[in-house]
Amino acid sequence: MKLAIDGMGGDHAPRSVVEGVLLALEEFPNLEVKLYGHKDKIAQELKSQNNRIEIIHCEEVIEGEDDPARSIRRKKDSSMTRMLEAVSEGTADACLSAGNTGALMAGGLLKVGRIEGVARPALATTLPTIDGQGFLMLDLGANADAKPEHLLQYAIMGNIYAKKVRGIENPRIGLLNIGTEEKKGNELTKGVYSLLQDSNLNFVGNVEARDLLDNVADVVVTDGFTGNMVLKSIEGTAGAMMSMLKEAFMASGKTKIGALLMKTELKKLKGKLDYSEHGGAALFGLQSPVIKAHGSSNARAIYSAIRQATIMAEHSVTSIIKTTIAESNAEQGEKKEENE
Amino acid sequence: MKLAIDGMGGDHAPRSVVEGVLLALEEFPNLEVKLYGHKDKIAQELKSQNNRIEIIHCEEVIEGEDDPARSIRRKKDSSMTRMLEAVSEGTADACLSAGNTGALMAGGLLKVGRIEGVARPALATTLPTIDGQGFLMLDLGANADAKPEHLLQYAIMGNIYAKKVRGIENPRIGLLNIGTEEKKGNELTKGVYSLLQDSNLNFVGNVEARDLLDNVADVVVTDGFTGNMVLKSIEGTAGAMMSMLKEAFMASGKTKIGALLMKTELKKLKGKLDYSEHGGAALFGLQSPVIKAHGSSNARAIYSAIRQATIMAEHSVTSIIKTTIAESNAEQGEKKEENE
Repeated sequence: MKLAIDGMGGDHAPRSVVEGVLLALEEFPNLEVKLYGHKDKIAQELKSQNNRIEIIHCEEVIEGEDDPARSIRRKKDSSMTRMLEAVSEGTADACLSAGNTGALMAGGLLKVGRIEGVARPALATTLPTIDGQGFLMLDLGANADAKPEHLLQYAIMGNIYAKKVRGIENPRIGLLNIGTEEKKGNELTKGVYSLLQDSNLNFVGNVEARDLLDNVADVVVTDGFTGNMVLKSIEGTAGAMMSMLKEAFMASGKTKIGALLMKTELKKLKGKLDYSEHGGAALFGLQSPVIKAHGSSNARAIYSAIRQATIMAEHSVTSIIKTTIAESNAEQGEKKEENE
Repeated sequence: MKLAIDGMGGDHAPRSVVEGVLLALEEFPNLEVKLYGHKDKIAQELKSQNNRIEIIHCEEVIEGEDDPARSIRRKKDSSMTRMLEAVSEGTADACLSAGNTGALMAGGLLKVGRIEGVARPALATTLPTIDGQGFLMLDLGANADAKPEHLLQYAIMGNIYAKKVRGIENPRIGLLNIGTEEKKGNELTKGVYSLLQDSNLNFVGNVEARDLLDNVADVVVTDGFTGNMVLKSIEGTAGAMMSMLKEAFMASGKTKIGALLMKTELKKLKGKLDYSEHGGAALFGLQSPVIKAHGSSNARAIYSAIRQATIMAEHSVTSIIKTTIAESNAEQGEKKEENE
């Protein structure tokens, strides 16, 4: 198992990346890592040599504010571009970056390439639920606009991931909508509803945004615009409440003692909402696994994302997606012919 | 100032409605209320007669699970239908219900009617921000699908409301989007961006869902599908965190003491997120103010919604919307002619 990793991506790179890699190497004896980035900066964090890490020196870095498509084309010697090329050349099984999301999506399409039959790759991540189970949501913004057929493919890909990576036998597929009734929604969701109903997926109907944290489905599909909005609303609200809570705890000597008494429980609460245990976001529908770790990833989050990439590669998630999408497309084609 | 109020709408009706009305009558000496509902049930809550409240007996109630359009047409003697008719007949200046949202929207369109030139009425509400200022967001779900021109009208109506009701001199208008850069978004937001830029509104550009609680704009426009999603994501996350927090506080004797020490500060935090101070949601674009109070409204929330209805009516918000929309439509028409 060989993983190509962008050593320079993310707010705390290369330190958190190197530390995350070291954690993962301890855990997964079959893992080897190709680490892309500035060799001196990486060596400084790595301290001692490790024969399972190959450092590939790159002069450039794609920054957070760089234009996605342009930076991939122009910064040919950037850690992200060269990491993606390793996958497309077949010298790595999967890749991972905590850098510029847009650039990784553009580069994934350009360098790694779409699976034949997948109309639009989708960005997917596992979000926490109150009971700790978590659920997979996609698309989170790979495509701002979508058609019903795209969401059916998102559901098919999410279903495979939930089965193979998360070990759920018969994943419950939900459609994110503004009401639970069948007739609710906009033109898009109304179109998707019947497609999902006619599929052989375990479709559990519409799910509402307010119930997402209550574990109402294992896979939730939506268009990239809405998915991105909902993800950021959840993150923004949780963040705002955490900072308000912190302020409340620091208000006086009395509240500080209160905070001290609450310490263990508050840590548990924070742990439940902690994204670093859930891995990164994966681009579904590409020829090989491309994983995006959160920009603010610490070593633990990088480790989780590596674990995710490893499991995806080991369970042949992309090749199963390839076969299943081909079958589904054939089926959809037959249905169309019947109707004509 | 005469207000028609649905005495039977909401989870705690008629009690919370009657109590809210009594609070408002104390505060606003010019206010008179026409209260629609079952006379015995209302009289029981009212206790003593009040010569500024006229009780109009209605046999029927539109329930939460009733089909919106059908219930308005069939339940002719329901408190909500008759309240709406009072406005359309001109015996009330504005109306308010905490009942079935869909029915109120359908009934508002059917009975009160659209302002000429408004393509789609929109549902708007004031959401809290961390700094306590709050911002107006629309559309929250009156229309699941929308075109760029509709969002321009939402912005125009929101601007008038922010000026007249919230007293903001030059309201900052933001477009809810998945990134702050001009070119970000789906087909809809890209279309709206240039319309807003060309308008004479104080357009501050795209705003992201994660920054909404940080007071980035006074009015935020979006399509009803997205607005509903974001609203419910914020509510759902805040609710989930509050219940997790409660659980953490009740975990042991130690944490209970901690909770006790934190009591005042936690109350403040809850107050900041309290929707009951911000009034209800208003249907913008109808001939008269139609206000929807939250289904779980307590007396305080009903009072706030009444205050909102009163200010909207006193400041002639609907008639200003009427003139402004007519002007804007004329302008848009001229631009179109120029381009042809």
